[in-house]
Amino acid sequence: MKLDASASGVFPIAPTPFHADGRIDEASIDRLIERYLAAGADGVTVLGILGEAPKLEPEESLAITTRFIEGFGARPVIVGVSAPGFAAMRSLAHAAMERGAAGVMIAPLPSLRTDEQIVGYFRQAVEAIGADIPFVLQDYPLTLTVQMTPSVIRRIVEENPSCVMLKHEDWPGLEKISALRAFQKEGSMRELSILTGNGGLFLDFEMERGADGAMTGYAFPEMLTAVVRLQKEGRRDDAHDLFDAHLPLLRYEQQPGVGLAVRKYVLMRRGTLACDAQRRPGSTLSATARAEVDYLLRRLDQRSERLASWLAAS
Amino acid sequence: MKLDASASGVFPIAPTPFHADGRIDEASIDRLIERYLAAGADGVTVLGILGEAPKLEPEESLAITTRFIEGFGARPVIVGVSAPGFAAMRSLAHAAMERGAAGVMIAPLPSLRTDEQIVGYFRQAVEAIGADIPFVLQDYPLTLTVQMTPSVIRRIVEENPSCVMLKHEDWPGLEKISALRAFQKEGSMRELSILTGNGGLFLDFEMERGADGAMTGYAFPEMLTAVVRLQKEGRRDDAHDLFDAHLPLLRYEQQPGVGLAVRKYVLMRRGTLACDAQRRPGSTLSATARAEVDYLLRRLDQRSERLASWLAAS
Amino acid sequence: MKLDASASGVFPIAPTPFHADGRIDEASIDRLIERYLAAGADGVTVLGILGEAPKLEPEESLAITTRFIEGFGARPVIVGVSAPGFAAMRSLAHAAMERGAAGVMIAPLPSLRTDEQIVGYFRQAVEAIGADIPFVLQDYPLTLTVQMTPSVIRRIVEENPSCVMLKHEDWPGLEKISALRAFQKEGSMRELSILTGNGGLFLDFEMERGADGAMTGYAFPEMLTAVVRLQKEGRRDDAHDLFDAHLPLLRYEQQPGVGLAVRKYVLMRRGTLACDAQRRPGSTLSATARAEVDYLLRRLDQRSERLASWLAAS
Amino acid sequence: MKLDASASGVFPIAPTPFHADGRIDEASIDRLIERYLAAGADGVTVLGILGEAPKLEPEESLAITTRFIEGFGARPVIVGVSAPGFAAMRSLAHAAMERGAAGVMIAPLPSLRTDEQIVGYFRQAVEAIGADIPFVLQDYPLTLTVQMTPSVIRRIVEENPSCVMLKHEDWPGLEKISALRAFQKEGSMRELSILTGNGGLFLDFEMERGADGAMTGYAFPEMLTAVVRLQKEGRRDDAHDLFDAHLPLLRYEQQPGVGLAVRKYVLMRRGTLACDAQRRPGSTLSATARAEVDYLLRRLDQRSERLASWLAAS
Repeated sequence: MKLDASASGVFPIAPTPFHADGRIDEASIDRLIERYLAAGADGVTVLGILGEAPKLEPEESLAITTRFIEGFGARPVIVGVSAPGFAAMRSLAHAAMERGAAGVMIAPLPSLRTDEQIVGYFRQAVEAIGADIPFVLQDYPLTLTVQMTPSVIRRIVEENPSCVMLKHEDWPGLEKISALRAFQKEGSMRELSILTGNGGLFLDFEMERGADGAMTGYAFPEMLTAVVRLQKEGRRDDAHDLFDAHLPLLRYEQQPGVGLAVRKYVLMRRGTLACDAQRRPGSTLSATARAEVDYLLRRLDQRSERLASWLAAS
Repeated sequence: MKLDASASGVFPIAPTPFHADGRIDEASIDRLIERYLAAGADGVTVLGILGEAPKLEPEESLAITTRFIEGFGARPVIVGVSAPGFAAMRSLAHAAMERGAAGVMIAPLPSLRTDEQIVGYFRQAVEAIGADIPFVLQDYPLTLTVQMTPSVIRRIVEENPSCVMLKHEDWPGLEKISALRAFQKEGSMRELSILTGNGGLFLDFEMERGADGAMTGYAFPEMLTAVVRLQKEGRRDDAHDLFDAHLPLLRYEQQPGVGLAVRKYVLMRRGTLACDAQRRPGSTLSATARAEVDYLLRRLDQRSERLASWLAAS
Repeated sequence: MKLDASASGVFPIAPTPFHADGRIDEASIDRLIERYLAAGADGVTVLGILGEAPKLEPEESLAITTRFIEGFGARPVIVGVSAPGFAAMRSLAHAAMERGAAGVMIAPLPSLRTDEQIVGYFRQAVEAIGADIPFVLQDYPLTLTVQMTPSVIRRIVEENPSCVMLKHEDWPGLEKISALRAFQKEGSMRELSILTGNGGLFLDFEMERGADGAMTGYAFPEMLTAVVRLQKEGRRDDAHDLFDAHLPLLRYEQQPGVGLAVRKYVLMRRGTLACDAQRRPGSTLSATARAEVDYLLRRLDQRSERLASWLAAS
Repeated sequence: MKLDASASGVFPIAPTPFHADGRIDEASIDRLIERYLAAGADGVTVLGILGEAPKLEPEESLAITTRFIEGFGARPVIVGVSAPGFAAMRSLAHAAMERGAAGVMIAPLPSLRTDEQIVGYFRQAVEAIGADIPFVLQDYPLTLTVQMTPSVIRRIVEENPSCVMLKHEDWPGLEKISALRAFQKEGSMRELSILTGNGGLFLDFEMERGADGAMTGYAFPEMLTAVVRLQKEGRRDDAHDLFDAHLPLLRYEQQPGVGLAVRKYVLMRRGTLACDAQRRPGSTLSATARAEVDYLLRRLDQRSERLASWLAAS
């Protein structure tokens, strides 16, 4: 099943689990898949920036992709194929689709600046991988330094029918969602799935602005799916209550540079990953930082309990 | 009274209130001063980036400075004097000190890259303004794109006795506070006041890492002073409870680009500012964004009440 | 006389001469004016980046502007008014025009990224200074990090009738000139004067691509005026012969960071400036670098002689 | 034969020849090798930025490397192994050394900013590839945005005995060569080979400052080897005469973004490459640009003849 513009819900961005010596840890991948499915994930994205994709060998990338595709069964797997050259992008995209991926995700090269350069890049990328592979447009200025206006996104969407989804990760980004949805209302842009990133830091309001869901790696995917569901059901206050309970940890996780270390540590503490190691060059957590995360986890536990009893009582 | 390395507590970064037509609004400055004092501010910082300093004429900058100095009485006023050239920096620094400022704040030029360039710049800045004016070193990589390691900060502190305070605004930044305090413990760096920025987004943990307080513009300065006090009293959980109640709004306010618009809007809603206008080029809030802030303010109100009743009951 | 889109020829970018102690050196300004006029300059631009504008006090900026306007008589003086805020831009622009400036030059803020941000900025700038002041659009990506496509320049030109000239300083930039002239040929952009910068490094071909002249600070303005004249007369080979004789020095002068130091040193060696000092923060030349420039000057002398005798013989 | 710190002379940076359809053109590689050897190249560097390395598949990279190693016989081949992750860097470095490479070249990641980050990165890189593989430190701030001071380079050299060469490509960069050679004179840094890049734009003076030669891709490698030889023989004026004759073309070739297109076009015009195509994303030359290069080639021809007859007559 190929990805299309009607996709919605939560697609976690999967980290890549490693053993302490840097080898890929397949058993942890399997536990990760289990947890995602248990949390109600609608799909998953592998080989993203968070997944340490540039540190993987080509054959490793394909092995990880295949394992996720098998584990996710009918649910769609999106594969990050961003690369400095189109040759590598094309070969990974084709190999992933052959193995059953639902689509690919493409980020712009960090050197792109002007509107024309950005639009031209995606035109060339689609020529390279072929117009029959659905792709997710990744908009992540904080890390990639490429700034796409709503108009530029519209041009890319209109020019390339295979662009079916936006991974929205601008900061600030709420007005961008509103602008894109307004384009659609006025008829100047076709249907597009919008899933949001930024570690979920604005997911509460992003859903209200018109996002279809989340594509991010927060270590409690069950919160992401619950907030998305509550907002779709119109239970605004409940969605915010749940979201706010997680916000102290979520904010801690969303720090650039160390965020992945926090996330892998939480996933290890929760029993999902056997080890929180990153491949080098990577980051690690100090003992103090680990203690801070432990403290945040304890507080989240307590608050979740209170929240659960309120919800039960109400 | 000149600023020294023993300074601590909360020094709000003051926005500059404007009328809708761009003129400075003195009455709102007076209300801002009142509110800061009522919230227990230990001092104040004017003409920072948040204060739209680059948009002011020299005579306006001095008028604002003078008004704050008069309003704050014995409590210290710090004046931002960052400028592309040392001539303007020197003349503003001297004029501010003559009017009774306690010290000045200096940010590095955005073009600085290497450790030597950064250290050299502050050496030249001190030569320009004179070694008798206490200064605050502003470390704000997200906006200024200048990255200072703990070692570089130590070199600046050790080379320049007039450097008495760090405005800490790195992101992530917790380990930086720990590293600087470790330098002091091992005797390789002298006493230094560390006040933290970033809108307060990590104030809860920054205090635990050794910060002396906060220098930021969050629109509820009473929260900042209370968290700083609670942490100094060792009431960790209470500090986090209060902080977490504000976090949803604080996070919304801390968005780059639109943060000042949110802050001015909240200050207007609270009756402090008559108008939330910025001088051009500036940013504005959409109607949807205003409604979102209103919603966050209502939730903060409710949660503060519950928090107050819990605290009373415990 | 106000600047208009028919302007052409050479407008040197004037450095600001200082005494060793940092005071402005008026006598050297007068010699600079003399030399520019003797070299056949069609106008001059003051308070540019090269002119160390951000290091000047407002009253100094105006004094320099006035001195150049008096010295240049009927020939147009353009005044750089780029500033972080529109208040300062407006006040300097108005003061300069009152004193007899022909127009002003505006660079985009370095933080601008998208086409819309850039176009919006110039719209706001024109609102701020008034639509009756002719302005030069400065396009200098290497230093300002703002990239304007030909389409963006066209939008600015079409939206703002007071935009009469482009200071073209992109690198590479030849295709940009061709693209803009093609816009005019096809009727999609009105008349616009294009003067080129980059220290003159591509002036030989820029004239062939359709530039109207040069606006740069190379220390031999008589070369710039001669190349412009020779190219306008269709004497292509002679223009290149003259240009090539200067290229070794020109290339040395065009180095970022130290270029101004080289330029001021050459102007001092030629007797125009009394001193080659820059205001801090600035750069200086090592003894080795000065010797290298001396060597290049000697070689230029010899080659110019040979060139002159060939030209005489031919 | 492994590379060591006594290496000197000219190591051209080899472009990767492609057919129009993007396949690698082996016959052109062979002609390129012939020409380099005929020009007196002392070695060669493959898979650099200029070589479009990020656009190659891993197996292609190795095939190119092998072909150059076979063609160069006893002369050293350096292989660019820069990569976003250490896994790919290690596997390419090992594969290249097994096939007979003399050493590898490593550029810093563009995200590195502080001195400590840069030094730490090369420490990790050496751990990854092994301390027995000689490596070239690539210092190229214009493209990589990483600025290394002479002190940082010294720290890397002193910490890593396998660092045997600097590819010097800072701009401006003359003082950096002098600073590094001064370190060696004072005994604070061990022997290091310094080959310079930047398209050769300052090769004339770089040799006088103490460089050991050039590592760059200018399309007339015979000029590079001749200038290096003349400078080593102390024939300063002759070196500059020859260099100056090439400077107009060299400057044209050294434009960022289009430089490689110019270079491949010239190599095609000279009969070395069958085709000047780049893999996508790449750049192309307009018809006008091609005509400009043709003009520069004709002028170079004429000037070389005159130069040759002068040299013969003198």
